[in-house]
Amino acid sequence: MKFKINREQFLKGLNVASKPTTSKSPIPVLGNILMTLDERGLHLLGSNGELAMKTLIPLRVNDLEVIRVYTEGSCLVSSKIITEMIRKLEGNEIDFELFDGSISKIEDGRTKYNLNSVRPEEYPEIDLEKNGVTFEVDSKKFIRLVDQTSFAASTKEQRPILTALHLEASEGELTAIATDSARLAKKTIEIKDNVTFSANVPARVLQEIANTIESTPGVSVVEVSVSDKKILFEFDGTVVSSRLIAGDYPNTKNIIPKAHNSFLEVNSSELLKAMERVALLAANERENIIKLTLNEDAVVMSSRSPLSGSATETIATCKYSGDPLEISFNYLFVSAAVKACQSEDVNIGFLGEMKPFSVKVNDDPSHVQIVTPVRTY
Amino acid sequence: MKFKINREQFLKGLNVASKPTTSKSPIPVLGNILMTLDERGLHLLGSNGELAMKTLIPLRVNDLEVIRVYTEGSCLVSSKIITEMIRKLEGNEIDFELFDGSISKIEDGRTKYNLNSVRPEEYPEIDLEKNGVTFEVDSKKFIRLVDQTSFAASTKEQRPILTALHLEASEGELTAIATDSARLAKKTIEIKDNVTFSANVPARVLQEIANTIESTPGVSVVEVSVSDKKILFEFDGTVVSSRLIAGDYPNTKNIIPKAHNSFLEVNSSELLKAMERVALLAANERENIIKLTLNEDAVVMSSRSPLSGSATETIATCKYSGDPLEISFNYLFVSAAVKACQSEDVNIGFLGEMKPFSVKVNDDPSHVQIVTPVRTY
Repeated sequence: MKFKINREQFLKGLNVASKPTTSKSPIPVLGNILMTLDERGLHLLGSNGELAMKTLIPLRVNDLEVIRVYTEGSCLVSSKIITEMIRKLEGNEIDFELFDGSISKIEDGRTKYNLNSVRPEEYPEIDLEKNGVTFEVDSKKFIRLVDQTSFAASTKEQRPILTALHLEASEGELTAIATDSARLAKKTIEIKDNVTFSANVPARVLQEIANTIESTPGVSVVEVSVSDKKILFEFDGTVVSSRLIAGDYPNTKNIIPKAHNSFLEVNSSELLKAMERVALLAANERENIIKLTLNEDAVVMSSRSPLSGSATETIATCKYSGDPLEISFNYLFVSAAVKACQSEDVNIGFLGEMKPFSVKVNDDPSHVQIVTPVRTY
Repeated sequence: MKFKINREQFLKGLNVASKPTTSKSPIPVLGNILMTLDERGLHLLGSNGELAMKTLIPLRVNDLEVIRVYTEGSCLVSSKIITEMIRKLEGNEIDFELFDGSISKIEDGRTKYNLNSVRPEEYPEIDLEKNGVTFEVDSKKFIRLVDQTSFAASTKEQRPILTALHLEASEGELTAIATDSARLAKKTIEIKDNVTFSANVPARVLQEIANTIESTPGVSVVEVSVSDKKILFEFDGTVVSSRLIAGDYPNTKNIIPKAHNSFLEVNSSELLKAMERVALLAANERENIIKLTLNEDAVVMSSRSPLSGSATETIATCKYSGDPLEISFNYLFVSAAVKACQSEDVNIGFLGEMKPFSVKVNDDPSHVQIVTPVRTY
C-alpha cells in the first residue's frame, strides 16, 4: 500500500472517520482507523461498536488530483495519532507507504514518521450493507428533527430504551419522540417516500450523526436505510451506521395532552432570562425548581431555597388566559423545551397544577414539548 | 446598611473581590464577600486564607454618582451568588438593603431577591496593613516578570518551597526565580526604589495577582510592600495580599551555567512547531522526551516511542556552532522556556549532553531559562 495524497482532503476524511473512535474502547483495535486504497480512492472507516463512519476520499475532486502514484492495499493505524499528525504537518502533500504490513512511513518533505500499524485482518466485521426500508430526507429538516427532540432522551442507563430517540414513519411523515419520563419532545417532518417503520436509535449517536451532516458542506439530501438491527445514513461519499436499541418504546400517546384549559403566550428570550435569574439561588443548591403563579392580571415567577433565600420576578411581555393557577417545575426542562422551539414566542398550555403542560409554537402542530410539573409543599 | 449602586461598577468590584473566594474552603465563611459601606464608598473583601483581595467602589467616579441614598453598615453575602446575581440582572441600578442583619433585599426594579446574609463578626481577621519594605514597580514590567518565570515553579506540594516564586531585590533591581528542580526560570527588572529584601510567594497566587492587575484598566504603577509574613500589592483602589512561604529558597547560583561551549540560534515558532510534530507519537504515551542531534551541518530532532513508532525532522531555520552533540530533554520544558522568551528567535547554549542548557534571547541578559537534559538509552 502506497500513495501520495492532498493533505487537506486527507484531513477532512480523517475528521469524519475518527469521530466514533476512542482510545478507551474495551476492544483496543477500535482505536484504529481502517484505511483501504482501491481503484475508487481511499476508504477510511472508524467505529466504536455502536456507531461506525466510513468515508471515501476519491482519486480526484473536480480538477484536483487528490491521490496519485498509488498501489492498492489496506492497514490499520491509530485514529488519534494519524489525525493529529496530518493536522500538524504543514506540507501540501503527504507521502504514505506501508512496509511489511506493520510500519507506515508518513512524510511531508520535512517531517518523517514511522508509525506502527496493524494488519487489517484484526479489525472486526462492520456491517455497512444497505438493507431494509430506504428513504430520502432533506438534510436541514433532519438536523432540526434531531436537535428539537434528542436532548429530552434519558442519559441514564437504567432503562436503556429511554436513551433512544424513537423514530417512526408512515404516510409520508417521519416522527421523532424522546422522553426521560419527566419530559417529552416530539417532532414530525415530511418525507417524500411513503415508507413504514419504527426504530429506536441511541439519541447521543443521532446527535453526532446530525453534527456530522451539518459540518459536511453541500449536503442537501440524506439517504436513510432502516433494518432490524441498524440504521444507515448516506451522504457525500460518507456512510454512517448506528446500532438500534432493542425493545418496545413506551406508548407516549396518553402523555401528550389532547387539550388545555389555560394558556400563556410569552416572549422566549424574556422567559429564559427570567428563569435563569429566579432560579439562581436554588440552582446554587442544585434544586432547580421554580414556581409560576398565573392569573390574567399578572404572571409571577418565584423560587425559594432553604439555605440561600428567595427570588421573585413579574414577567412583563406575556399574556395569560385561563383560571388562576400555581405550577412548579424543573426550570432546566422548561428552558430546554423553550430553546428547542427556536421561536421568538412560545405558547404554554396548562391543564392543572399536577398535569403535564405543553410548550409549543403557535401555528406549528408538528412540534410539541411536554414537561411534568413537580409537587412542592 | 442600605444603598443604591450602579450595577456595572458593583459588578466590576465583585469580579475582583470574588476572585480568591471559593465555596469549597475548609472555612465556610470564606465563601462570602465582606461588604462594608462607609463614607468613602463600598469596600468589598474576599479571601481564601492565602490570597486576599479588597477593592473600594467609591461614591463617585468622575461625573458618575455610583452610590447614593445610603446608610453605612456591613454584612457577609455568598460571593458566588451575589456576583452571578449582579451579572444576570439587567437594570442600571441595584437597590440593596439589609434587614435584621440577616437578609439582604436586592432589587433592580424587575427581579427581587431575599438573600440570606451572615453577620460581619463571623469573618476572620484579614491583615491588609502596609508594613515592611515598600517600593513601586511598573505594572507592565511586573506582569512580564511573573509571566516569564512563575510557570517554572513546582506544582507538587512535597517541597512547598519549590511552589514559590522567589523574589529578591537589591540595588534597584527586582529578580524573580522559579524552579521545580528540573528547570529554572530567572528574570530581572529595574525598580526605582533602592530596597533590599527576599520573599517566597506562592507562584500560583502571583499569577492570579498579575492577571488581576492586567485586567484592571489604567494601572501603570503598582505599590508593593513586603514584610515577614505577607506581600501586599496596591493599585487603583484595590489591595491584594498574599501569604509568604516559610523556609529558605534553595541556592540556585550554581545551577545557572556561567558559560557555554556551543550554541543553537533558532526561530522560535519553527522550533515550537517542530517539537510538537516530533513529540506527537511519544506524547500519546505520556513520554515527552525528544532528542536533538546537533552538528554544524544539520540539526535533527527525533523521538521514539515503544508502542507507536518514531519521528524525525530536520530544523531548517537555525544555526549551530560547536562540537557535534546529542542531547535529550522533556520538550514541554523547552517549549515553555521558548514561549517565555517572547522573541522571534532564541539562543540555546549547551555545555555537554548531561549538563543543563540555557534558553535566552540574544542581547537580553535580564532573562534566562535553564532546562536539565534527561538520559536516554
